[in-house]
Amino acid sequence: MSRPSSHPNNDRIAQCGEAGVLTMVRAMFATTGTPAPEIICGIGDDAAVLALPGGTAYQLITLDTLVEGTHFAAADAPARVGWKAMAVNVSDIAAMGGTPTWALLSLALPAATPQTYLADLLRGMQRCAEQFGVTVIGGDTVGAARMTLSITMLGTVAPARVRYRRGAQPGDMIVVTGPLGGAVRSGHHLDFMPRVAEAQWLLEHAPPAAMMDLSDGLALDGTRLAQASGVTLALRAAAIPCNAGVSLEAALHDGEDFELLCTIPAACVTGAVCAAFAQQFQRPLHIIGDVHAGAGQLLLDGAPVAPQGYEHFAL
Amino acid sequence: MSRPSSHPNNDRIAQCGEAGVLTMVRAMFATTGTPAPEIICGIGDDAAVLALPGGTAYQLITLDTLVEGTHFAAADAPARVGWKAMAVNVSDIAAMGGTPTWALLSLALPAATPQTYLADLLRGMQRCAEQFGVTVIGGDTVGAARMTLSITMLGTVAPARVRYRRGAQPGDMIVVTGPLGGAVRSGHHLDFMPRVAEAQWLLEHAPPAAMMDLSDGLALDGTRLAQASGVTLALRAAAIPCNAGVSLEAALHDGEDFELLCTIPAACVTGAVCAAFAQQFQRPLHIIGDVHAGAGQLLLDGAPVAPQGYEHFAL
Repeated sequence: MSRPSSHPNNDRIAQCGEAGVLTMVRAMFATTGTPAPEIICGIGDDAAVLALPGGTAYQLITLDTLVEGTHFAAADAPARVGWKAMAVNVSDIAAMGGTPTWALLSLALPAATPQTYLADLLRGMQRCAEQFGVTVIGGDTVGAARMTLSITMLGTVAPARVRYRRGAQPGDMIVVTGPLGGAVRSGHHLDFMPRVAEAQWLLEHAPPAAMMDLSDGLALDGTRLAQASGVTLALRAAAIPCNAGVSLEAALHDGEDFELLCTIPAACVTGAVCAAFAQQFQRPLHIIGDVHAGAGQLLLDGAPVAPQGYEHFAL
Repeated sequence: MSRPSSHPNNDRIAQCGEAGVLTMVRAMFATTGTPAPEIICGIGDDAAVLALPGGTAYQLITLDTLVEGTHFAAADAPARVGWKAMAVNVSDIAAMGGTPTWALLSLALPAATPQTYLADLLRGMQRCAEQFGVTVIGGDTVGAARMTLSITMLGTVAPARVRYRRGAQPGDMIVVTGPLGGAVRSGHHLDFMPRVAEAQWLLEHAPPAAMMDLSDGLALDGTRLAQASGVTLALRAAAIPCNAGVSLEAALHDGEDFELLCTIPAACVTGAVCAAFAQQFQRPLHIIGDVHAGAGQLLLDGAPVAPQGYEHFAL
């Protein structure tokens, strides 16, 4: 680290953590005065939402960065790293209820990167882009000591179908679209399938009140959804789907699952809907709890869960 | 570098250089079949251009990354680094003839970054955003060994006013909006003012045929414009404006000037236009050569100039 080392330790961002950094960012860029009417949703959800001329569609925009050593290892197969870099952004668009359209890539690469590595990395990105109908329209390449991949993803959503973290209501059921935990250890974090089809199916058959993707773990992301909505999420431990060989602890805190976390009005979560989801996706829709009045808390069998997940700024 | 060190050296991206990397990226993401009608301009210019519904405006999108040790030093004042990170993206929008609107930030930060450093960095970004009417609408923060700042900038431009690198015609005059060279040594690369007002003024008073911003130096960027347009740019050495204490060599090859390079039909570049530009901006409009039929060459007083500038992938 090249920041001045004489600096007092209690001022490091490791002390305030990711939540503190986000608070600083939001405070600095808080829209003052009358916000622009085009901004439907700014900082704080899985993607920003802009109104397009004509009023028939909203545009979704997200920007996610993958850093070697944090989000992938140097030894990981480059095609899988490329897939992940594209897929995490597709997942953000899916979580807003949208379909992805365009992407821009910024590749920060060490000069010693083998050309064959780069070719495989790009192939992995392109395979994911093709699968989800995304066209790459720009970006840049720069030299760097450590590989860092930033992707901007755009998407589109009808105004009536956009979903936020903030929509959960008491009486909703809490659902997840697949099993959780162990994604980094198993390698699933490099191969996961963004849940675009699942989100679209739910919007048709059991419209979610709130939706997000699980990148930092159910405990942390669930708390974020509870806080954004101003409700309490009451999880039932026995109902949380854990990947094979994964503990409940890991399913709560591991992160990088990229399943959807939704709350859906209870009346919409019928047995027929669950059966149709299972038929469509060959995987159950997991009902893991329900929503109560409250102020941003996550409960597991009635007891508070610490909002611990992946912490980016640990020393 | 953590890529397998057993790899043959002749396969490193240092061997093919930035131009080779860009060729690989373009080949991988070449639009196959019928391109989407919304994509007015994809990979290869300062920003991508998308048609918006209704037809009255195009949307511009660019994504640029700044890496500590490449684009700024650890000892540089964070407010200046923040300004630069925003300004390089504003400059891309200006170069397409547009005005910037929205931005997303991706901050990859070491955990040991002082909170005061981050606050100053964000303040520098916000000062630039405010100056150019940009609202920050999203982004993400991740941990990293080395600070890496990616910004997505959106902008808007009327369809008749969008400009590309590819529009230069024989008979155009070549102009730059300010003096060149030495920007890294002088620190100007951290404080430069993106030429949004200058581009808009030129579009009104002497509409450019081709336009780009000078990030990698006149020799390299000029060659790119010549190649995109399929013309020869003939520069006059005596006419190239050099910053104080800077050699012609440095003005040609240094990079990071972020002045605009335009070609403008000769009939539009009158004495009255040049006088009005100087009056408006308290700085001359520099006419540095003219455009001839040709195939992508850059000449200096009749002799070919090597397209050498900042090379990102040097070992």
